[in-house]
Amino acid sequence: MKILVIGASGLIGRAIVESMKEGNEILKASRSSGDFKVDISDSKSVEALFEKTGELDAIIIASGEQSYGHITNLTAELFAVGINNKVLGQINVVLAGQSVLKDGGSFTITSGLMTDPPFSEGICTFVDNAAIEKFVHVAALELSRGQRINAVSPAFVVESLDETPQGITIPEEINLVTSKEVAESYRKSIEEGKTGVVYKVWG
Amino acid sequence: MKILVIGASGLIGRAIVESMKEGNEILKASRSSGDFKVDISDSKSVEALFEKTGELDAIIIASGEQSYGHITNLTAELFAVGINNKVLGQINVVLAGQSVLKDGGSFTITSGLMTDPPFSEGICTFVDNAAIEKFVHVAALELSRGQRINAVSPAFVVESLDETPQGITIPEEINLVTSKEVAESYRKSIEEGKTGVVYKVWG
Repeated sequence: MKILVIGASGLIGRAIVESMKEGNEILKASRSSGDFKVDISDSKSVEALFEKTGELDAIIIASGEQSYGHITNLTAELFAVGINNKVLGQINVVLAGQSVLKDGGSFTITSGLMTDPPFSEGICTFVDNAAIEKFVHVAALELSRGQRINAVSPAFVVESLDETPQGITIPEEINLVTSKEVAESYRKSIEEGKTGVVYKVWG
Repeated sequence: MKILVIGASGLIGRAIVESMKEGNEILKASRSSGDFKVDISDSKSVEALFEKTGELDAIIIASGEQSYGHITNLTAELFAVGINNKVLGQINVVLAGQSVLKDGGSFTITSGLMTDPPFSEGICTFVDNAAIEKFVHVAALELSRGQRINAVSPAFVVESLDETPQGITIPEEINLVTSKEVAESYRKSIEEGKTGVVYKVWG
């Protein structure tokens, strides 16, 4: 299969490439490195990417900036980061990617932890992830030519734990996961043939 | 009570003003008319609004542009309309409005119809509304000084039915509602004292 991985240089992106490289042709895209450079928040940049990739069997996005903070001290600018990048950015990729994704091909995009009750400082990510999961559920019903779409929802990844923003207390019932475990769900999304699924990797 | 209504010149906004004007001081804001002009998608414009209003007992937003279309023919620009206006715009108002909203005061923002299965051409609004309702649920837990937040989710309003975009088939089980019925839920949100509620006005 010919698989495009956007966010290929990140922790999870690298694990996905490692997990999928055997027997597949992997195209790596990132904001500043890899085979292709792309800024997913810029629809023109996304369209330019697909002019270069040609037809694809699968498109994975393991990318998407987010912000953390409590509602009493968040700014509009901080809230907009995830909305523009993780939500609209991933939607940009799906809208433009339909034209190069083969019949039966799959999109796999990235959601994230939504606990109930919500963990502190997580309101931006909860809003972003709710939008993304609703998009996946509706898009799965509307895509044409057998194209599929799923999301992977990773919990906090053990290797990046020292990057977890201050103020976040990870709920006790949430187990940490490894990037390898997360990558496994992207592989399942491609290989299991399902659509409209959110693969939760919450340990 | 001193109540700010953003989107006061619209169909639902006018019905809200009519429903609440008895015994209350209503400040009307709209993009291009009313006591105050504001573009909610511009956080600077929102901050400037609250510098003028002074302290408020309630803030209502009955505003928020949206787009319609099927995933196979939507553009990134169309999808961004609702995300920037209805989602980020309403969030801008809540983030900035906390500083002028009195103890125990309420925000009432606007969601919309989310049917299961989704109606055709509605994917943008479904994503927007999912984000808005998640924001309300989490924000209700985090707001300080007894401040409250609810959403009203109106179905298609009978008086604006001729503006319903082509291609949308309103599901049979969804009854049309009047703007007066919708306005009643904004009044309840202020008067019932609840928080974290989505008032569904689906006939």
